[in-house]
Amino acid sequence: MSNRIRLGMVGGGNDAFIGAVHRIASRIDDHYELVAGALSSTPEKSRASGQALGLPEDRIYDDFKQMAIREARLKNGIEAVAIVTPNHVHYAAAREFLKRGIHVICDKPLTSTLADARKLVKAAEKSDALFVLTHNYTGYPMVRQARAMIAAGEIGKIRVVQVEYPQDWLSEEQDFKQAAWRTDPERSGAGGSTGDIGTHAHNLACFVTGLTVESLAADLQAFVPGRRLDDNAHVMLRFNGGARGMLWSSQVAPGNENALRLRVYGENGGLEWAQEDPNRLWFTPLGDSTRLITRNGAGAGDAAARMSRIPPGHPEGYLEGFANIYSEAAQAIIARRDGETPDPDVVYPTIEDGLRGMEFVDACVRSSAKNAAWINL
Amino acid sequence: MSNRIRLGMVGGGNDAFIGAVHRIASRIDDHYELVAGALSSTPEKSRASGQALGLPEDRIYDDFKQMAIREARLKNGIEAVAIVTPNHVHYAAAREFLKRGIHVICDKPLTSTLADARKLVKAAEKSDALFVLTHNYTGYPMVRQARAMIAAGEIGKIRVVQVEYPQDWLSEEQDFKQAAWRTDPERSGAGGSTGDIGTHAHNLACFVTGLTVESLAADLQAFVPGRRLDDNAHVMLRFNGGARGMLWSSQVAPGNENALRLRVYGENGGLEWAQEDPNRLWFTPLGDSTRLITRNGAGAGDAAARMSRIPPGHPEGYLEGFANIYSEAAQAIIARRDGETPDPDVVYPTIEDGLRGMEFVDACVRSSAKNAAWINL
Amino acid sequence: MSNRIRLGMVGGGNDAFIGAVHRIASRIDDHYELVAGALSSTPEKSRASGQALGLPEDRIYDDFKQMAIREARLKNGIEAVAIVTPNHVHYAAAREFLKRGIHVICDKPLTSTLADARKLVKAAEKSDALFVLTHNYTGYPMVRQARAMIAAGEIGKIRVVQVEYPQDWLSEEQDFKQAAWRTDPERSGAGGSTGDIGTHAHNLACFVTGLTVESLAADLQAFVPGRRLDDNAHVMLRFNGGARGMLWSSQVAPGNENALRLRVYGENGGLEWAQEDPNRLWFTPLGDSTRLITRNGAGAGDAAARMSRIPPGHPEGYLEGFANIYSEAAQAIIARRDGETPDPDVVYPTIEDGLRGMEFVDACVRSSAKNAAWINL
Amino acid sequence: MSNRIRLGMVGGGNDAFIGAVHRIASRIDDHYELVAGALSSTPEKSRASGQALGLPEDRIYDDFKQMAIREARLKNGIEAVAIVTPNHVHYAAAREFLKRGIHVICDKPLTSTLADARKLVKAAEKSDALFVLTHNYTGYPMVRQARAMIAAGEIGKIRVVQVEYPQDWLSEEQDFKQAAWRTDPERSGAGGSTGDIGTHAHNLACFVTGLTVESLAADLQAFVPGRRLDDNAHVMLRFNGGARGMLWSSQVAPGNENALRLRVYGENGGLEWAQEDPNRLWFTPLGDSTRLITRNGAGAGDAAARMSRIPPGHPEGYLEGFANIYSEAAQAIIARRDGETPDPDVVYPTIEDGLRGMEFVDACVRSSAKNAAWINL
Repeated sequence: MSNRIRLGMVGGGNDAFIGAVHRIASRIDDHYELVAGALSSTPEKSRASGQALGLPEDRIYDDFKQMAIREARLKNGIEAVAIVTPNHVHYAAAREFLKRGIHVICDKPLTSTLADARKLVKAAEKSDALFVLTHNYTGYPMVRQARAMIAAGEIGKIRVVQVEYPQDWLSEEQDFKQAAWRTDPERSGAGGSTGDIGTHAHNLACFVTGLTVESLAADLQAFVPGRRLDDNAHVMLRFNGGARGMLWSSQVAPGNENALRLRVYGENGGLEWAQEDPNRLWFTPLGDSTRLITRNGAGAGDAAARMSRIPPGHPEGYLEGFANIYSEAAQAIIARRDGETPDPDVVYPTIEDGLRGMEFVDACVRSSAKNAAWINL
Repeated sequence: MSNRIRLGMVGGGNDAFIGAVHRIASRIDDHYELVAGALSSTPEKSRASGQALGLPEDRIYDDFKQMAIREARLKNGIEAVAIVTPNHVHYAAAREFLKRGIHVICDKPLTSTLADARKLVKAAEKSDALFVLTHNYTGYPMVRQARAMIAAGEIGKIRVVQVEYPQDWLSEEQDFKQAAWRTDPERSGAGGSTGDIGTHAHNLACFVTGLTVESLAADLQAFVPGRRLDDNAHVMLRFNGGARGMLWSSQVAPGNENALRLRVYGENGGLEWAQEDPNRLWFTPLGDSTRLITRNGAGAGDAAARMSRIPPGHPEGYLEGFANIYSEAAQAIIARRDGETPDPDVVYPTIEDGLRGMEFVDACVRSSAKNAAWINL
Repeated sequence: MSNRIRLGMVGGGNDAFIGAVHRIASRIDDHYELVAGALSSTPEKSRASGQALGLPEDRIYDDFKQMAIREARLKNGIEAVAIVTPNHVHYAAAREFLKRGIHVICDKPLTSTLADARKLVKAAEKSDALFVLTHNYTGYPMVRQARAMIAAGEIGKIRVVQVEYPQDWLSEEQDFKQAAWRTDPERSGAGGSTGDIGTHAHNLACFVTGLTVESLAADLQAFVPGRRLDDNAHVMLRFNGGARGMLWSSQVAPGNENALRLRVYGENGGLEWAQEDPNRLWFTPLGDSTRLITRNGAGAGDAAARMSRIPPGHPEGYLEGFANIYSEAAQAIIARRDGETPDPDVVYPTIEDGLRGMEFVDACVRSSAKNAAWINL
Repeated sequence: MSNRIRLGMVGGGNDAFIGAVHRIASRIDDHYELVAGALSSTPEKSRASGQALGLPEDRIYDDFKQMAIREARLKNGIEAVAIVTPNHVHYAAAREFLKRGIHVICDKPLTSTLADARKLVKAAEKSDALFVLTHNYTGYPMVRQARAMIAAGEIGKIRVVQVEYPQDWLSEEQDFKQAAWRTDPERSGAGGSTGDIGTHAHNLACFVTGLTVESLAADLQAFVPGRRLDDNAHVMLRFNGGARGMLWSSQVAPGNENALRLRVYGENGGLEWAQEDPNRLWFTPLGDSTRLITRNGAGAGDAAARMSRIPPGHPEGYLEGFANIYSEAAQAIIARRDGETPDPDVVYPTIEDGLRGMEFVDACVRSSAKNAAWINL
């Protein structure tokens, strides 16, 4: 009946945080309808979660492989799948859907190991399906605004990039589910804070500046007794073209909830953006007074307007930014469905971005093991 | 197939702002499915808008009366209707649906005249249907937090209430659609800024404090040449119990996008909240340092958590706050559908709140006409 | 030996707040040397305070009259006197010095009664001496910047003025010295918060906008049990030329330390300034993005630079703003000493400003007694 | 006649920024009287500057050596000297005064070379005179508050220190005097931004935390074409006891005026302070809401109150913080004059702090030359 994209979900059962986020994000702009799921690592939980979400009984699956096989055979099977499991499941799950031509919308980081990431890139190359990585912070309107301004040369050649992502929720030993897998190398991978949030910071810095990190020197710490992965990371960055940067990720910085912040300085100006105040972008043309550019307000341009629903002064937040990634994906999927080329303005994080994120984590870990020696990416 | 509440919409055609907001709000928590609409004042526009939204052809209506009559007869007709037209249509539209037992979710202000408001209250009293007014700012988690803290006595007996709602979008003559009806007494009613945003400020102050305005003295201005309704209003307030307040609404204050702000001071403490930074509430216990209470962060309680989806530091915004009103309404509607009593925590703005808003506008206009004499409400 | 202005002080003994402020302010730019004092209402305290300040024994006086008489006869007697007593002493003290041609730098409000204020104006008219009123907030560089911008038409014709001055230090009954005289009508005058801080707010609004208040309607409250003067005031303002405003002064608003704030909106733009963040001025040209103008930074002009000592980013504060009044006064005094006309840029609050402040307090009290009727000033 | 400390000054002629700052700082609390000066590198400018300041003709000197010799012989010669020249003069000047038992108040960094710094330490050890280094940011009340809270264990064992000091004034080639010597290795030393402001950041981090930097890895850049010293520096820090940190200094970050900022995170809490908003300290006890502690406000203790003159909400700024160093020095000098031990609360930056600053700069330069290898301090 509806034209909505038929969506499945792997992971995201009852007590998961990020699964619910993906579902809301998929609904906000009404491009998707969730119709199938393998929502948990155990069949019972998967069933209970599917029922709670109102999924048809026959489209609640015990596991992702079963779902991939059956949905691929259905006449109106899913066209896309959202993968929202812990990191170590991403690779195997994504492969099954890619293999069958089902588009993948996958949470970050791409995988739990660099080796898996590389294999997944190959799997994606062989597939006709699209692969969208939810580095959701690239969906914020003012992030798009900053990116467009830099691309237009408004701050000139970039010299310095400061990016940080401090949190405080792992300042002590924690054993609830969200914390447990993120601090477990088996499920999370080699990076702790670097993998969970450092990848976001790295991605955001590259997305906004258009630069890539050529090499880095990292000093990782695991401050909480017994912690097996880094919970704080200090990284120095060298970008192509000569820009230099610092990246700080932390899960042990009391007073910081989710304080991702990016500052970029060029020859002719500077830009600042903070995730916790996402509707505002601070712009200083060198030698002039600082401007506050607001979402949809004066000074904001098309790149931000595309990602925005409501007038300035009416805050959009995290879920809207996340929804923007889903809407970009929807435009690409519908274009593919219709045999058309998507609007060239459609931008979303790709599997290559995911690979670069895994290389970033790997380089951080290796650099730190060598006493912060420089590692090329 | 689905358990979602079947929703219709009156108004909200292609170029309307608030209709799109209502639709997103209705989707965020997945309690509603939009299935019918009379989306514009002309049948052609209504049809085009309905098609753009993917409504079934036979449920796109020429006008609200036709829709009310037909949907009431359908086996799976709409259970609720969102009314998102200019103010002067609210009364006639709402009456048709109330009459037929269809729940009404109506944009504010309640009507364009106090007389209509009073008639609508009577119509609602005769109806079995629920009436929900979208004073959406009451849906913000930290507004609920402030209300709960005041109810719990955390700032003591209230002395002073400062509420303001400045904007700048009508600083000059405007002729686009959103501006046109809001500055036209025929469609908007007797209040300009007082009706459009002053009612929000008044409602928010009362909702959070639990107080009612007993009398007011208002000095209204129409600064823009040719403007027929107030575009700036200065109001002094006297509340029951002895608290005093000031209310400022303005549409001619450059630099203010949508700067609703509430400050409440009691014998033992103070609270501050600003709509443009909605995830934060500032609390000062008298004689102690100011605390920053964040949505879902330390210090935030159940009343806020009920209205919140994601962890602290991940901003929720205007649409989520609006969605909270829809979700409260959904709980009430589903309880009604199931013959049950809704959870006592379910709170939403009612038709009585709407009537009080109309009385506020009427009092402002009358007071100002008498050189700011005190008017009892 | 030195060219410094020889300064005396009336009031400002050991435990006074504002006396110490005046002394620091007089030293910052090195234009004054404190050489005499009648520092307290009792000879013993005056002597002890004078000794603590290192004054010569023979220039520590028992009372202001003795000081005025003797200093006027000395060859190198004081050229100026700072009067920093409670309000009710201002008139009698100032008169003695004016009578003898000694310049007066007087704390605000001008006097404790309007009658005294009027008499003092006459006394000043008869005297050759200068009279400087320390409405110190007019000395802040960004206040000067705002004033210059408005005078230059950068926000166009003014429509709306919002000024507020909330504090919290009198939220409860207090009996320490600073509180005692400020809540005592015998020493403070008819206004409580209106006299102590409302006069600052009124003065600041007029100084920056260049407007005068033509009439006002005031609703005063004394919330703290037993309080004999207003501790909270809500005032609606009508300015010459058609601008309207609101003024709020409060000493019972927990969380507000000294939160004087001014917002001015004109046909073409808006300006905002807050005393607790004094080095920043927010400027929004209508239809453009908001600018942050910083003291001595880009966008700040000569009027601010005259009042500023150090580069942008190095905060200047309350004492420097206060010192600016002393330095303006010094320029005027030295010009007078040299028989010259002071630089036309020299601006300081005058006895006429003080009279207008007293008229403001008087009008507030009378209006409130008439249930907030409009009173012409 | 007066009990004030007799002060001389080396450097600080007419167009110098920091000399004027020292003079104001010395006056604010009235402990000093400037009585002699060798204010410039040329006798003519020195004389003109001295006359402009009202110094007695016979105490305006051609150079610092002449001044040291003559003042040491005078009965009422200077007791202390402020050295405010470019860095390369500090050593030779300070030595002359130390040799003669005249207390030295010296601007930072201590010298232009590490070798000079070491020699100066020896000279100071041989002298009876005090040596005070004006790392002025340690004089801010809320810096003292943070230090006292950390010493009292309020945030527990420190894990992470983030300190940054970005500016933008050298983003382009500049040739005015302040810029010229700061970018000239002959006069400034081996460090550009590291020496001029990195030393402040390093000193502040150590002062507040009570930790010392054990080793660092630095990546220095000179972005402006033709610049001979670093104008941007990225530094990773390892402190004694296991804490880690990052330090960023920059003079090419548009939008940053003087944005020194310190954040410290411990096992039980976090603290944040920013120089441009100096009256506020943000404190988060782990698991509780963030508190805003204000100068002299609730939650601020004795260490801050000692450094503060006026009530909360009345901003003190840079000059007052600088004056606090002068007042600490005055207490020490007067105690010495009186043969007493100063109050144990008296704290000021010492020559050892200056030596550590020079070691910091030297380590940064050496580390960067070795591709950011770790260097022990």
